[in-house]
Parts: sequence; C-alpha cells; structure tokens
Amino acid sequence: MIILGIDPGSRVTGYGVIARRQTKLVYVASGCIRIKGDTLAERLAQIYTGVSDIVRQFQPEQFAIEQVFMAKNPDSALKLGQARGAAIVAATQAQLPVAEYSARQIKQAVVGKGGAEKAQVQHMVKHLLQLPGTPQADAADALAVALCHAHTEQSLIRLAGQASKTVRRRLR
Amino acid sequence: MIILGIDPGSRVTGYGVIARRQTKLVYVASGCIRIKGDTLAERLAQIYTGVSDIVRQFQPEQFAIEQVFMAKNPDSALKLGQARGAAIVAATQAQLPVAEYSARQIKQAVVGKGGAEKAQVQHMVKHLLQLPGTPQADAADALAVALCHAHTEQSLIRLAGQASKTVRRRLR
Repeated sequence: MIILGIDPGSRVTGYGVIARRQTKLVYVASGCIRIKGDTLAERLAQIYTGVSDIVRQFQPEQFAIEQVFMAKNPDSALKLGQARGAAIVAATQAQLPVAEYSARQIKQAVVGKGGAEKAQVQHMVKHLLQLPGTPQADAADALAVALCHAHTEQSLIRLAGQASKTVRRRLR
Repeated sequence: MIILGIDPGSRVTGYGVIARRQTKLVYVASGCIRIKGDTLAERLAQIYTGVSDIVRQFQPEQFAIEQVFMAKNPDSALKLGQARGAAIVAATQAQLPVAEYSARQIKQAVVGKGGAEKAQVQHMVKHLLQLPGTPQADAADALAVALCHAHTEQSLIRLAGQASKTVRRRLR
C-alpha cells in the first residue's frame, strides 16, 4: 500500500510518499512544491496541479495531512486554509481517502512522545525510513504524517486481528 | 459577458450569476450550495464540485470573489481559507480568470459608499438587478461581488475609451 503525506503551505508544500510492504515501511519519494506566481489563484492552482501530478506519478491509495487545531494568527490561518483547501480537493478529485492527524498524534506515532521537538521528528523520519540524509523540513513533515497514517492503519489492523481472535475464542 | 460571483463559506457558499448585455446588467441566477458531510474532505469536495457544476451550467467568462483582509479569529480564518481554496481551484480548473475585491470595493461599487451596511448592499443588489424579492444573504453577497466586477470592468473600459480619446486628441 502506498501512502502520500502532504504538508501544505502557501509558499512551500511538502510531500512524502512511503509504501508498506508486509510489515516494513519503505521510502518511495519526497520533496517540495515551491509555489510561485503573482496571484492567489495562480498559487492555489499550482498546489492543486502539483499534488495531482504527484498522485498521478506515485498512485497512492491513501492520503494523510496534518490537522490544524490552533493557527498562530488569522492572516496565516487564512493562507494555510487556502493551501489546505487546494491540496485536499486534489486528493478528493483523485478519489483518495483523506486522513487527518493532529501534530500530537504525528509526534506520538513517529517519536513516541506527543510533545516531541521538530528536530526529533526529523531525526526519527530519517531513522525509520533509513534515509542517507535528513530531508528538507517540509518534506520531513510530509513523510512524518504518512508514517503516522501507516502506523495508525497498522494498529487498527492489529486491533481488528485481536478483536477477531477474541471473537473466535469466545465462539469456541 | 457572464460573470460568476462566489461568496465562499464552510457551511454555505453563495453564488450569483449576472450577464452584461451592452451597458445593461441582468440577473441570471443565484443561490446557495449548502455544505453537508461529516469530514472536511467531503465538505471541500462539495464546494469544488458545486462551483464546478455552476460553471458548467452557466458558462461564465469571469469569476469574482471577495478578498479577505482581516479575518475575525484564527479558527474561522482557517475554515474560510479552506472553503476559498476549494472554490478558487474550481475556477482555475475551468480556466476562468479570478478577480478579487475587498469588502470596501464591493460596497463602493454597489452602494457608492465603502462603509455601507450589509442591508444597504442587499437592497441595492435587489434594486440594480430588478429582483422581485431580496435574495438570501450569501446569494446577495455573491451577486454583489459579481456586480462589483462588472462595474470595475466597465470603468476600465470607459477609462480605456477616454485614454484612447485623449491619445487621439493629442495626435491631432
């Protein structure tokens, strides 16, 4: 299963693609869409087409994005919202299921601590995916949300497995 | 020329379609996309497909939207940003040019006063388009931004006309 993580931003939108092969998570690709353009419409169109291109190239089956609970200020919240809107719509138009995770959930899944530092997250992304170097910050954040999704999915599968075992045990 | 005005919102997105026939502005349609759905992705997809459907139905050549300068708080700014992102991307994917106007510009164009009340704007929308009743608030706001765009375009044409007359006068 291939998972696309997106870290949207009005200037740089990070992406990270990972694959789950049996119980192993492997790195596929990551990078940044650097947004240029004079008008808001041009910039949002770039995020939309950028994400759509990545979806076409890597054919992910899952899409994960960081949930925003507390934005710093109304102005940056508006800009972030616009970028998120463009990125999420690109996923829905490609019929991808969209999963959202809070920063806390991502840190908990990747580092094991909900209050982990950004540098620790980047370090663990590098370690977990056995990367030769630390990826650029936005790409690392996108890989982190993809890892969080993979982890959560796996936990759910494990839980589902345990539940069905319990049911089987009860049925005996 | 057909102009589509959009008043985006995370719960209700208003739309207004007007047409310019020579110097006259006529009402074509208006209404609301009422956004339902449990997840953010579902709701943003509804805004995107809703706006795309209106574009397909009325075939506008211009798209106008209110510019947001000061959002009330980070939370509402994020929600509004997401809705704007989905609506603007729908316009860019239909190859429509996107024009943005501030609330002040819209009030100035429709009422003649940048500081006009919301009720005055709605009253003037009804009057200018000779509507039998007052449209729903979000639809009225969408019609107002479409009217502002039509007015600005006309002013630009008038200015361009005057400029070319001036040039001609100078050339004599």
